Amino acid sequence: MPSPRDASPRLQKALDETVETVEKTIKRLLPETNLAERHLFDAMRYGVLTGGKRLRPFMVVQAAALFNVDPSRARRTAAAVEFLHCYSLIHDDLPAMDDSDKRRGKATVHRKFDEATAILAGDTLLTLAFETLSDRDTHADPHVRIELVRKLAIASGGHGMVGGQMLDLIGEKEEFDLGTISRMQRMKTGHLFAFSCEAGAILGKADEPHKKALCNYAYDLGLAFQVTDDVLDVEADPRDTGKPANQDEKAGKSTFVSTMGKEQAKMRAEMLVHQAIRHLHIFGGRAEMLKELAMYVLQRRA
Amino acid sequence: MPSPRDASPRLQKALDETVETVEKTIKRLLPETNLAERHLFDAMRYGVLTGGKRLRPFMVVQAAALFNVDPSRARRTAAAVEFLHCYSLIHDDLPAMDDSDKRRGKATVHRKFDEATAILAGDTLLTLAFETLSDRDTHADPHVRIELVRKLAIASGGHGMVGGQMLDLIGEKEEFDLGTISRMQRMKTGHLFAFSCEAGAILGKADEPHKKALCNYAYDLGLAFQVTDDVLDVEADPRDTGKPANQDEKAGKSTFVSTMGKEQAKMRAEMLVHQAIRHLHIFGGRAEMLKELAMYVLQRRA
Repeated sequence: MPSPRDASPRLQKALDETVETVEKTIKRLLPETNLAERHLFDAMRYGVLTGGKRLRPFMVVQAAALFNVDPSRARRTAAAVEFLHCYSLIHDDLPAMDDSDKRRGKATVHRKFDEATAILAGDTLLTLAFETLSDRDTHADPHVRIELVRKLAIASGGHGMVGGQMLDLIGEKEEFDLGTISRMQRMKTGHLFAFSCEAGAILGKADEPHKKALCNYAYDLGLAFQVTDDVLDVEADPRDTGKPANQDEKAGKSTFVSTMGKEQAKMRAEMLVHQAIRHLHIFGGRAEMLKELAMYVLQRRA
Repeated sequence: MPSPRDASPRLQKALDETVETVEKTIKRLLPETNLAERHLFDAMRYGVLTGGKRLRPFMVVQAAALFNVDPSRARRTAAAVEFLHCYSLIHDDLPAMDDSDKRRGKATVHRKFDEATAILAGDTLLTLAFETLSDRDTHADPHVRIELVRKLAIASGGHGMVGGQMLDLIGEKEEFDLGTISRMQRMKTGHLFAFSCEAGAILGKADEPHKKALCNYAYDLGLAFQVTDDVLDVEADPRDTGKPANQDEKAGKSTFVSTMGKEQAKMRAEMLVHQAIRHLHIFGGRAEMLKELAMYVLQRRA
């Protein structure tokens, strides 16, 4: 698994802590079974527990901390977001989609198990995300739980993440302009980043300006993340990223790099990250980790 | 599309009414678009709007009527259940799963569009089910909405519908005993039938005994439905069902018919239907349509 290099020591420590505590929660929510259909649960655990930087859980946990939310509630919400994110990876890797054999240096779920199991494991993780959010243990107040459910559904549906993935597939055949690429990336990544940050505020019953600030931070960061992803696709070491180089070009996809060139793309990422950080001024000095996360997105090599 | 033959005139009228009103709701919740990714929404509409008996929506609407629920709320909930049901059909039909070219006499979604689009259309319908239930328009009380979300997630997840589909695939390679077949069918069909009936009671803030009665009715009916499905697989006219005969045997699946024989299976279905109807005694004479639905399951030819 590629580790998030070049993170500052204290960001690295906070990231490691999130990985550890959220994975404990994930394992509790997704226990091993001895049922005849255990295969399905093995595939889900495999798809969720094989590494990953856990950026979205980190955002949930950090945003929740700004409003003094009970950490166990934040971790359950973080796990739900990660279930959703991992379902999308499992389905995106399928032969009919991106047809990836490896992710994070390991066999993808459909290669390790089989295609049918991978489809069903993704379906179940998506469903489990909503099951987790709707549970009383996630928050005692049903207003909070239903807001989490509704906003996650919107962020990840046809006008959010899945719609973005559809656009991505269309982009293999059609050339996109910068506006369409930006809209696609906002759908693919931005909305779920925004939900992750806003979820912390929802759990803390924060007011609209604070929710809005976190969403704006997340949208800028999400776009910066995708721009750097496109840059890494052309210049990263496959040993760091765990995936082959130049995948986008091979797939014929329009990217920020193919549209604006690598240097322009790097400048754009930098601009977006600084803009993201400015949205956090509303929190005074209390959102340091989210600011460092933004800087890390610029510096990452994987 | 096979029409539900042999339904009594008044059941037929009620079924037709549900088809009409729920499809209107579905079209409103899933409008056509002119977005670049409209393909995705076209596939969703195709997957949801090409016929079907709408048994689950009918259960929601009929159960809700027992508690004088606002019909528009019942129809939204019914649409959500149908989104979920249709997502499961779209994914089950995929080449990696049941590999079906036709459903209800028409091309399946992955044949009409393509595999990637079918996977994403299913994902989006699943997500839209939760988006719909969590919307204020479905019920003003967040306690009601969150109970709907939670129970639908449990009914359709790894210990419900998707787990049942996993077992079904395992059953193509392993021989199942009657207990495992019954458990599988309860997961595949029973839990979503039970949710459909219970949803009406949840919307009406009914007490536990009434919820329980509706669930018990639905479980018995769901099992009867699957038993008759297995019978139809060996004896129905493909022109009625819109799918080839003997699919189960060809797929090497253990069914109620392969395990207990056709005549025993028919008797079992009859016994289950009468048991289902007895659970409705708690409603006195007010659940006539649900009783007729149960009788229809015995008589259907498609």
